[in-house]
Amino acid sequence: MIDPRVAGVGLTHFGSHPARTSRDLFAEAGLAALDDAGVDPADVEGVFYGNFMGEIAEHQGHQGPLMAEAIGVDAPATRYESACASSGAALRQAVQNVRNGEADVLVVGGAERMTNLDTAETTEALAIAADDLYEVRAGLTFPGAYALMAAAYFDEYGGEREDLAEIAVKNHANAVGNEHAQFQREITVEDALDAPMVADPLGLYDACPITDGASAAVLVSESYADEHDLDAGVAVTGTGQGGDKMALHDRDALAHTPAASDAADEAFADAGIGTEDVDVAEVHDCFTIAEVLALEGMGFFDAGEGIRAAAEGVTTRDGDLPVNLSGGLKAKGHPVGATGVSQLAELTKLLRGDHHNSEHVSDARVGVAHNAGGTVASATVHVLEIQE
Amino acid sequence: MIDPRVAGVGLTHFGSHPARTSRDLFAEAGLAALDDAGVDPADVEGVFYGNFMGEIAEHQGHQGPLMAEAIGVDAPATRYESACASSGAALRQAVQNVRNGEADVLVVGGAERMTNLDTAETTEALAIAADDLYEVRAGLTFPGAYALMAAAYFDEYGGEREDLAEIAVKNHANAVGNEHAQFQREITVEDALDAPMVADPLGLYDACPITDGASAAVLVSESYADEHDLDAGVAVTGTGQGGDKMALHDRDALAHTPAASDAADEAFADAGIGTEDVDVAEVHDCFTIAEVLALEGMGFFDAGEGIRAAAEGVTTRDGDLPVNLSGGLKAKGHPVGATGVSQLAELTKLLRGDHHNSEHVSDARVGVAHNAGGTVASATVHVLEIQE
Repeated sequence: MIDPRVAGVGLTHFGSHPARTSRDLFAEAGLAALDDAGVDPADVEGVFYGNFMGEIAEHQGHQGPLMAEAIGVDAPATRYESACASSGAALRQAVQNVRNGEADVLVVGGAERMTNLDTAETTEALAIAADDLYEVRAGLTFPGAYALMAAAYFDEYGGEREDLAEIAVKNHANAVGNEHAQFQREITVEDALDAPMVADPLGLYDACPITDGASAAVLVSESYADEHDLDAGVAVTGTGQGGDKMALHDRDALAHTPAASDAADEAFADAGIGTEDVDVAEVHDCFTIAEVLALEGMGFFDAGEGIRAAAEGVTTRDGDLPVNLSGGLKAKGHPVGATGVSQLAELTKLLRGDHHNSEHVSDARVGVAHNAGGTVASATVHVLEIQE
Repeated sequence: MIDPRVAGVGLTHFGSHPARTSRDLFAEAGLAALDDAGVDPADVEGVFYGNFMGEIAEHQGHQGPLMAEAIGVDAPATRYESACASSGAALRQAVQNVRNGEADVLVVGGAERMTNLDTAETTEALAIAADDLYEVRAGLTFPGAYALMAAAYFDEYGGEREDLAEIAVKNHANAVGNEHAQFQREITVEDALDAPMVADPLGLYDACPITDGASAAVLVSESYADEHDLDAGVAVTGTGQGGDKMALHDRDALAHTPAASDAADEAFADAGIGTEDVDVAEVHDCFTIAEVLALEGMGFFDAGEGIRAAAEGVTTRDGDLPVNLSGGLKAKGHPVGATGVSQLAELTKLLRGDHHNSEHVSDARVGVAHNAGGTVASATVHVLEIQE
């Protein structure tokens, strides 16, 4: 069992591209990844593709074959859908398949087209990631769901809106210089606190934006990398997946995400590392509170301790554990199906040293990506490491 | 590398159940499969689930976690979507994961809810499996697409509507006695020829119906089967997947399905068998012409020779290669996301000897399942064999 190498990564700009189809977006990201890898599309043996709401946003299901064709690949292609963890789920399976010798070269990625819908339509479309019968029909949308989780956290552990604002401030600062990011500008705590309330206690700056974009990566076996003399020094050394009950009311607690804990436990054991070995992380901050729950769920902080991590500088770019140096979903943007592999792309560049924030983590050797679906009914965690 | 065993299978009735959600349907099929297997839900390590159009039909994406919960399984769950090959794609990955030691016990299956929409809505929803920009907006629907393929076949190789009618007659006859089938009644060639034309040369009886239903199977490692003394004598010994360009106009020919050929070549090589070893097959007859293309594509007949197979009795239940003893998509029905694993369930029962048509294939030891998406832009083929 030999860990797959990340031979190349590619991203579109994340932002508002209402006239671009998913296939157009993915073509750009996929071809960029193949180019970055120096891999011939004819060598690709499969495409593992994440997409969440193409049926609704652009009347297009069955996107796997479309995406393979868009990047000049003549190989089987399958679409994975786990809500906002769609390309995380695709990544996990691609990692397992390369590791197990099912393939030597795979393209993994995702895309989402969202801004061609109006905001109300998008909110309704996003709600299909929740339980339609028992949550959505009762009026719950995702800002409301995460607001419940934030309120439960505050109630159980304390914390306040300023703490969440510090997370938004951090992630906006990290996005400055990221040419792929939707918001390449800083904000202040005051900006966040003064912004309109979306769902108490979450304001506008506690929520990620609506985003179009695509991501891709080329995973190869070690033997393929060696034979083709590829510059592929980053490996995926751990993969984990967790699941939870879909509806919030069916869970034991609102301020915990056991699916993320399960995924992290599995991924860290798989890689043979502990939280103390991790130098940098990309986590699924669809809302600021989600970053807190992710970091606590994965064991980086005890329950109740993660809320102050940004404010205290632990997770800022010069802290002990820089989190979301990409800008995160908050500032880089969240084209749903693309996010999981976007995190992989960002971490790969951080570990390779060609990221806009590389100077802040020049010694980083181990990175972790956390991708979550819905209110974390699905989660994947992946560990990336520089190989000797 | 040891082939996974099919420990148990479960199916709902395939038919019109407009008030039942996908989760309700899958709960019935999944629990039936677990019961058939004698496997404790607590032992299940993952759910691989196929669904095609839940976002549109019931405003429900992210169905993986819902389905795990519906069958009492606390494990990660992922939804696969490859149009009509959705659960075939899920099955392939589950087979690979058990074979490679990623898991000892997995549930694989699928569900689709369709009849709660009206027929026009369903036709429009099904069209998301085609190329929206270049096929659907030009007015192409699936009956039209398969009519083009049938017309091209007739033009290239000959054949006539009576030949296709014989396929429908055969599959309807096979469905009699299948308690899961939508149409448990025989038809005549005259019935088929006299029925309304849908898209020339395809009439009403050349098309599969619109169907609600679910399917499930429990796959286990050989060691788990042995340890738990399971009655699991059928193994999945071969898996293959193929892809093709999405739109018909981008292909070299309309009367061939190279994705199915690629999938079959891979699956047969994987199992170490040839077409001559196959005793019984379930193939994706969404339209009668699709059965012909499937059988030729997989190499059971030379191009142009498959059209007469039913009329000449080769593929009837007492012929050399009985095809679609379930009734096929034509008569058993086609709840899109459920079909791939439904074929697995039917073959498993045929090989075990507890199928309503078992008496016709009492010596069968090798079965093949062919599942296709769209106009066969996606295809999976699986080989099942009785183990000594």
